[in-house]
Amino acid sequence: MGERIDLYDTTLRDGTQGEDVAFSVADKVRIAHRLDELGVRYIEGGWPGSNPRDIDFFDAARKERFAGARVVAFGSTRRSKLRAENDPNLQALLQAGTPVVTIFGKSWDLHVHEALRIPLEENLELIHDSVRFLKSRVDEVVYDAEHFFDGYEANPDYAMRTLEAAASAGADVLVLCDTNGGSMPRRIADLTREVVARFGRPVGIHTHNDAEMAVANALAAVEAGARHVQGTINGFGERCGNANLISIIANLQLKLGYDVVTPAQLAKLREVSRYVYELANIQPLKRQPYVGDSAFAHKGGVHVSAVQRNARTYEHIDPAAVGNRTRVLVSDLSGRSNILAKAAEMGIDLAGKDPVVKEVLERIKQLENRGYQFEAAEGSFELLMKRALGRHEPAFELVGFRVINEKRAPNEPTLAEATVMVKVDGQVEHTAAVGDGPVNALDRALRKALERFYPELREVRLVDYKVRILNGRDGTAAVTRVLIESADHEDKWETVGVSENIIQASWEALIDAIEYKIAKEAERRRRGDAPPASLKEARAR
Amino acid sequence: MGERIDLYDTTLRDGTQGEDVAFSVADKVRIAHRLDELGVRYIEGGWPGSNPRDIDFFDAARKERFAGARVVAFGSTRRSKLRAENDPNLQALLQAGTPVVTIFGKSWDLHVHEALRIPLEENLELIHDSVRFLKSRVDEVVYDAEHFFDGYEANPDYAMRTLEAAASAGADVLVLCDTNGGSMPRRIADLTREVVARFGRPVGIHTHNDAEMAVANALAAVEAGARHVQGTINGFGERCGNANLISIIANLQLKLGYDVVTPAQLAKLREVSRYVYELANIQPLKRQPYVGDSAFAHKGGVHVSAVQRNARTYEHIDPAAVGNRTRVLVSDLSGRSNILAKAAEMGIDLAGKDPVVKEVLERIKQLENRGYQFEAAEGSFELLMKRALGRHEPAFELVGFRVINEKRAPNEPTLAEATVMVKVDGQVEHTAAVGDGPVNALDRALRKALERFYPELREVRLVDYKVRILNGRDGTAAVTRVLIESADHEDKWETVGVSENIIQASWEALIDAIEYKIAKEAERRRRGDAPPASLKEARAR
Repeated sequence: MGERIDLYDTTLRDGTQGEDVAFSVADKVRIAHRLDELGVRYIEGGWPGSNPRDIDFFDAARKERFAGARVVAFGSTRRSKLRAENDPNLQALLQAGTPVVTIFGKSWDLHVHEALRIPLEENLELIHDSVRFLKSRVDEVVYDAEHFFDGYEANPDYAMRTLEAAASAGADVLVLCDTNGGSMPRRIADLTREVVARFGRPVGIHTHNDAEMAVANALAAVEAGARHVQGTINGFGERCGNANLISIIANLQLKLGYDVVTPAQLAKLREVSRYVYELANIQPLKRQPYVGDSAFAHKGGVHVSAVQRNARTYEHIDPAAVGNRTRVLVSDLSGRSNILAKAAEMGIDLAGKDPVVKEVLERIKQLENRGYQFEAAEGSFELLMKRALGRHEPAFELVGFRVINEKRAPNEPTLAEATVMVKVDGQVEHTAAVGDGPVNALDRALRKALERFYPELREVRLVDYKVRILNGRDGTAAVTRVLIESADHEDKWETVGVSENIIQASWEALIDAIEYKIAKEAERRRRGDAPPASLKEARAR
Repeated sequence: MGERIDLYDTTLRDGTQGEDVAFSVADKVRIAHRLDELGVRYIEGGWPGSNPRDIDFFDAARKERFAGARVVAFGSTRRSKLRAENDPNLQALLQAGTPVVTIFGKSWDLHVHEALRIPLEENLELIHDSVRFLKSRVDEVVYDAEHFFDGYEANPDYAMRTLEAAASAGADVLVLCDTNGGSMPRRIADLTREVVARFGRPVGIHTHNDAEMAVANALAAVEAGARHVQGTINGFGERCGNANLISIIANLQLKLGYDVVTPAQLAKLREVSRYVYELANIQPLKRQPYVGDSAFAHKGGVHVSAVQRNARTYEHIDPAAVGNRTRVLVSDLSGRSNILAKAAEMGIDLAGKDPVVKEVLERIKQLENRGYQFEAAEGSFELLMKRALGRHEPAFELVGFRVINEKRAPNEPTLAEATVMVKVDGQVEHTAAVGDGPVNALDRALRKALERFYPELREVRLVDYKVRILNGRDGTAAVTRVLIESADHEDKWETVGVSENIIQASWEALIDAIEYKIAKEAERRRRGDAPPASLKEARAR
């Protein structure tokens, strides 16, 4: 294997500077765990001095265990005229309680004059004092030289002296930042080489994508000797974004022969990319390199037939290496094998020529055309298969429902009330419930109606509820897709519903979630794993 | 000025190989004119041998006049066992009637074996014959060496012999293609340099973005001597797309000092990018380098205050150079300077020390903590500012609303009906409407109630509606954020609402959308731009 490169992720800090990107504290913790699993060495969690939400994250992160990752707090050098030990920003960094602290300082004389408005010499003291103070109190201090490349262009001697100030104070890593994202690879490579030769300690690179060169610039720095690479998942970040760690990891490992992550971690790239999009609620970029839906999708006839003969003809890597797959946009041949693979996963034996395969395929194409998505709704997909095979008996029959949202006066809350009428085994059950919104009210009323017959529903929790509007151009009449994630004490399952009416879409997904649980328990009892739990089934014996 | 580089656009051919990308013939002609205005030298219009729509394009294009661009027909070398003059593909190329023809040939022995399934020597004859035949009949022949870089890696001698075959037959330009998009810049640069030195004629570069390196690779080739660059607008194309000409043009001109387009043409970059997105009906990428909405958008308070003092501090170029502009985003990461900048944009004079600034900032932090997001809802932000300043008078008073969703029988659709009661100027208006879902019904009922008083609402359209569940972990009781985008004949504005109840959240965003429009019209009439349009206002005079 090649030389080791340390990955430094700042999705949770610089990533959230991107337009439309925001994460809750709980989501940040979840992402941190995915980054740890991916083999990221440093997870920059936020800027505790600037934002109360970031302090909450560090409080939460201290209670978590990570396999190999170290959580990092980020902040700036001390303020002018304050001693380091009295600086509230540096204090907030220590209170974050992380083993690693990163601070950024100014390398560009323009910024010292225009932003800090202090003499150039004083900035060197700020850098030196802050690094020294932190280094005496935490295990590792990373120094981010903000605007290093622009600063060097304007005043090479001064830019180097800022690095000197950080290095002599004990900074463990000197990170060269192309903060404005406008540098070209040659400048990045030349200056990185010079800094590596001069300072005799690990050098890092932090690039932005303003000239569509962030990934290329990061790689140019590594080839010039940088051994620490900063970036974000999917390239989220201020303006045009940061360097995309997904592409950097794949390129370093697969193209340039560096030792970055294990093959099993590499195969998680697509999953991690999707997970971060999902939590940011941002539509994944289809043509994203390596991990996008279109990354290995073939449309042209010439390409499709060549790829089916030998994938190397039009695929630069094996998509499975990064957790992706080949898609053929015109042929349904690939679809058939997907259905078979999926059925096998569910323990359903199907012959390749079974007509039900074609039927399921047709049904999926129809439904996906209308906006359904089964990739993220395997619970609904399993029910669809079983329905097509005649192996699913509905647990109940819907007679009707009504949901009322009412605001009776300007300052009163909006009330949501649902009534549901269902028939189980010939018995009609009519219930009503209120809720925090129309879907919550509907969910409560439906469970109330069914729990008498299926007590196992009591342990089902809705753990996630996602709404996506599919073609926003028609205003509120657009099609709505609802994804619901449910769980019991041992499993999780996702279900989907689609309609112009969000209530109807939610209803479909709720029904599938409940049907899935009832079918799962019935299956288990058939196998003799548990005693009969439902009245209906007890009667049936 | 630096050396001249020829731009070769293949948006209309390779671009349409991208997933979801398709253009009508009329749209292709429109795009061709924009490319001509932009200073593109070659416009590849299609593959007449493969696609009837492409033949129609060339028929249409022959009737058009272009200032400097030359239209190009694209195709493959002749088939095995056919003489060039009898090959239907080459005939179709001639029938396109273009001054320039591009043909691609195989450079990679793997493809000769696996795709063409002919001997290696015969492929050299195919290339030579086809180029010679075309060169005797059209003005200029461009030879695309498909998979040149992969082919060279597999069999360097053979890859060079394919170029030799094209060159000796009179090809005007030899284009090296990284067809699978997996090459790194060093290989691209080394081989380009070698080909430039060896063949003594213009060399071109055609790259793909599968490793997020398409732009970097194209620039590396230019720095190694290529003088012809192929790409597509916005990087549309098969799999991860082609090299993005937008970024290439800006980088060559602004970063590397080449002579590519005039300053006036450069200032059209954003407009051309948007135009192509619009015709392809694809959502523009916000963080696209140079031309995206976020490309010069600043969110962090530190950045905003520095940019206001001197834009160079966090902007790598002047956005106006590429037809873009600086934007300031408002969020809980903002400081006082964001608020002041935003107020100035809205034409509101505020002193930095005005207590209302602090009040607005506090209010935004509070609201964002509850899930509001103002960076994507500038309409709501403007109302919030005006309310804080006491400069907003509500256009109406809500008395109450009710939305009913009802499913009366299993196979009937779910009906949505809304009733709304509002008071305008003492008069109570009570209306009802049905809709495609609860929000659509509510929107219709509300407008019905208000249009009598504010006829300007008739021209308001809802153009987008987005829903986001903020902390899905609580199941359906999670908080819902709704963003609505509205438009009239000249403006667009976004508004936001947040609640546990999706109906309430939608209601808030709808109200702001309507209030915004009414305030906008009132403001305009105060300035004397238009006659009084609302009854209420007419009465007030």
